[in-house]
Amino acid sequence: MSTEKSALSIFALGGVHEIGKNMYVIQYADDIVVIDCGSKFPDESLLGIDLIIPDITYLQENQEKVRALVVTHGHEDHIGGIPYILKQLNMPIYASKLTLGLIRGKLKENGLLDQSKLNEINSESSIELGAIKLGFFRTNHSIPDCLGVVFYTPEGTVVHTGDFKFDLTPVNNQYPDIHKMASIGENGVLALLSESTNAERPGFTPSERIVGDHIEEAFKKAQYKVFISTFASNVHRLQQVIDAAQKTNRKLLLLGRSMVNVVSIAVEIGQLNIPEGMLIEAKEANDMARDKVAVLCTGSQGEPMAALSRLANSSYRQVEILPGDTVIFAATPIPGNERNVSTTVDNLFLLGANVIYGSGSVTGMHVSGHGCQEELKLMLTLMKPKYFIPIHGEYRMLFQHRLLAEAVGVEKDNIFIIKNGDVVDISEQTARQTRKITAGNTLVDGWGIGDVGNVVLRDRKHLAEDGILVVVVTLSKTDGKILTGPDIISRGFVYVRESEALLDNINRLVLITIEELQTGSSLMKWTILKHKIKEAIGKYVYAQTKRRPMILPIVIEV
Amino acid sequence: MSTEKSALSIFALGGVHEIGKNMYVIQYADDIVVIDCGSKFPDESLLGIDLIIPDITYLQENQEKVRALVVTHGHEDHIGGIPYILKQLNMPIYASKLTLGLIRGKLKENGLLDQSKLNEINSESSIELGAIKLGFFRTNHSIPDCLGVVFYTPEGTVVHTGDFKFDLTPVNNQYPDIHKMASIGENGVLALLSESTNAERPGFTPSERIVGDHIEEAFKKAQYKVFISTFASNVHRLQQVIDAAQKTNRKLLLLGRSMVNVVSIAVEIGQLNIPEGMLIEAKEANDMARDKVAVLCTGSQGEPMAALSRLANSSYRQVEILPGDTVIFAATPIPGNERNVSTTVDNLFLLGANVIYGSGSVTGMHVSGHGCQEELKLMLTLMKPKYFIPIHGEYRMLFQHRLLAEAVGVEKDNIFIIKNGDVVDISEQTARQTRKITAGNTLVDGWGIGDVGNVVLRDRKHLAEDGILVVVVTLSKTDGKILTGPDIISRGFVYVRESEALLDNINRLVLITIEELQTGSSLMKWTILKHKIKEAIGKYVYAQTKRRPMILPIVIEV
Repeated sequence: MSTEKSALSIFALGGVHEIGKNMYVIQYADDIVVIDCGSKFPDESLLGIDLIIPDITYLQENQEKVRALVVTHGHEDHIGGIPYILKQLNMPIYASKLTLGLIRGKLKENGLLDQSKLNEINSESSIELGAIKLGFFRTNHSIPDCLGVVFYTPEGTVVHTGDFKFDLTPVNNQYPDIHKMASIGENGVLALLSESTNAERPGFTPSERIVGDHIEEAFKKAQYKVFISTFASNVHRLQQVIDAAQKTNRKLLLLGRSMVNVVSIAVEIGQLNIPEGMLIEAKEANDMARDKVAVLCTGSQGEPMAALSRLANSSYRQVEILPGDTVIFAATPIPGNERNVSTTVDNLFLLGANVIYGSGSVTGMHVSGHGCQEELKLMLTLMKPKYFIPIHGEYRMLFQHRLLAEAVGVEKDNIFIIKNGDVVDISEQTARQTRKITAGNTLVDGWGIGDVGNVVLRDRKHLAEDGILVVVVTLSKTDGKILTGPDIISRGFVYVRESEALLDNINRLVLITIEELQTGSSLMKWTILKHKIKEAIGKYVYAQTKRRPMILPIVIEV
Repeated sequence: MSTEKSALSIFALGGVHEIGKNMYVIQYADDIVVIDCGSKFPDESLLGIDLIIPDITYLQENQEKVRALVVTHGHEDHIGGIPYILKQLNMPIYASKLTLGLIRGKLKENGLLDQSKLNEINSESSIELGAIKLGFFRTNHSIPDCLGVVFYTPEGTVVHTGDFKFDLTPVNNQYPDIHKMASIGENGVLALLSESTNAERPGFTPSERIVGDHIEEAFKKAQYKVFISTFASNVHRLQQVIDAAQKTNRKLLLLGRSMVNVVSIAVEIGQLNIPEGMLIEAKEANDMARDKVAVLCTGSQGEPMAALSRLANSSYRQVEILPGDTVIFAATPIPGNERNVSTTVDNLFLLGANVIYGSGSVTGMHVSGHGCQEELKLMLTLMKPKYFIPIHGEYRMLFQHRLLAEAVGVEKDNIFIIKNGDVVDISEQTARQTRKITAGNTLVDGWGIGDVGNVVLRDRKHLAEDGILVVVVTLSKTDGKILTGPDIISRGFVYVRESEALLDNINRLVLITIEELQTGSSLMKWTILKHKIKEAIGKYVYAQTKRRPMILPIVIEV
């Protein structure tokens, strides 16, 4: 059986062996359905890069087959790539109400709303896209309106869970569709793609409700104003903050662009209930008794420009935090954000605030949106797939998820830990992973999508470490004599005024290098001269400073 | 009472409102004693900087008064600045055996050993330095041979704890000098400086011994080779690894420069007991049965060049990790190192290893070297100081430590949370904090100490984000006509071959700018021309790319 005969193929363009940038593809013959279109943030090594999105070369090469982009939920690692990818390939988008609301906002900002093809779905929807029929089921996560996706193909059923936990006492009573999942599993699942974020964590993630209890308690205890910060997209948590404010007779002020934005979308579509008259403006908040006011704001990750960070360093004009006010971080710092969060906490203590901060498992002010090991096992048990592909996670998470799948009875040889671009082909009910398609990172820098490559990044790194030394010299075309220079310009290497001696010596070194070359041969080549100057200065500078600035010799013949 | 009359002064040159770079000063009249001389690592914003050390302007200005540098223990945040600071000010150094051994290594590397004045002390030592008499007491920490320091001055007794925990069942039976501490406190302590690293954590830090139990258990369970990685300086933990190897009949291979270095110093001074014939070389390790070998290596923080990281990506030639081998991280990832540790763990799983990783509180493979809240309260209770200055920590830790001091009876007004450079003056048994001396960060870059300032760092940041565009044009001195150029050179901005159109337009823009200026006035100033070119290109490039590269116009008159 050759791979060409395979009708059903499953692969990732982003999201495996990494966190973020999720994009999965289900292809049956000439029909392609894409799941999610996320972005991720660059690490420090990608200097100046704003965002990373999936490389969609494969989709562009097969664009006549692409039927739809289905989006499981509205987090950035699932929708963040949409405005960029849509410029490259305009796919029809299918998503639930809240998810679509958030996508719409992004498209509007990027002037893409008019040309986009948006379709609202819910867990009851049923869609036919060529030979693939799609169904959905509701899951719980740290944002409402999440969907798992079922692909009914002639070869068999494929299930993609999206992000999920099993919250059996969910806020707003959005229960997980367990019976539906059971029925899907009962009817036979050929392949399951399930998320692995918390595959390393034993147990069962607590219900979002326990956060509500802790928030209410803190609101009751607070003597003066309460400031509470969380992820704007966690609408259920926002609801619990609103409920706590109401129970403690506080009015609520919203601060931060994304907080105001998400609240307005969520209210509009009925995902958030705010009692009339509860929301107030900054001016009113300042005029009211301090124990009658709560502030719900962005900045739980210490983002320097977010509301809480600016409140903490007293650069937020409209409102201020006074001694005795309570500040709650209703979010655990994500690895990498600790330093920024700590700085904000320090600043808040300096203002005299009572600060509730640290890990949510200690403060009770945060629970994960992802299911732990017992929930992953529950999903595997409900779906009882023949083949299993763990997704969403770095290798160790996919690996642990494989162990969980084995533990609940999936055959070891039927589990595929894939890399982005690895294709799992299934035909005649047999899966094999032999071929690869193009996959990788597309870097976004400013307006540029994919135009910053390795050469540019290597130069940025070099410049960042030790700066640049530009050496300019003008030579006569006729006799090779120096007409102007050498002039030495330093940027990011040394401060010129304080390093005159060093720069004088570099100057001398350039003169000597030119003289030597001119004595040696009347046919001096500029490329050789440039190379010699670079070499001589590089050696001298390293010996003197142990630094290696980029050296840019500019030799001009006039 | 004017501050000039104060005889006793206490201040920090590093270590408060920050983690690392510890340096404290006790001055009585004309005698200055310095405690510790640490370094800290720069954050991402300090591009190209290797290390941060304290600004010792004050000590240099008062060098005739500086009697000694006393070092509490051998961690980098207490000794890392010594080779740099000693070049600026050659103080006699007093430290315990192991601490001195580690300092000696640093001085040797920097060619400073001959001129340095090293004095070995222990917890029984007594030194007189002018009007100040020094005594010491033994503490427990994650490195052996730690000392607390007592300063007997005519004004009263000052105690500096160094880093400490109370390990009541210490490895190697190096018990904390509790009775001595009690006696110091009983005789009256005017001021206590106590470390605050774990002031946010409730409870009592577990004994290092529990790590030994877990290591032994893991060694027993391991089917094949065991690789274990921890901080080289944690000699007690190394001892427990050696003990576990012996109990399970394994020979031990040491990998990593600092591991080999610390083991050899610790063996030499009798801090580490290794049974004869236990240590083996890589060649022997490869020839032995896999279940008879253990490997103790560096790299527990995922440092890219350390032994474990290289083992994990199979770039360590002499030894390799095979499927079924066990790898233990005997250290919790320090915030900021998670990504590197995770990469290493992923690579190890890919090799088929059983990996024991994650937080030490879950794995049992790590305990903190710093005392938690109950231990900090115990120290405060033993010393019962009149004045208290929390040290070693960011503001929130110092703040929490103040609350602990209040809880055990120190008067609130007698607690000073100081910044680096804030001076606490005590005279006639009364303390006040009113004046400041110079303090701050000295940046080390290559051989340069303190020569990289804000201008250079700002340029590096600019270059790192968006690179540089150099525009070179030669004009005739006589008629202002263009002789060569404009030539555009891009580094770290765009890759020239892929951005020809953009660069062509920039070229045209320069020509237009020059022409316009020449038409407008025959007396064209080069500074104005440069400014105009910069402005025109900057605007155009930002509009086209949303990036702001550094623009360096070079206009040459020939």
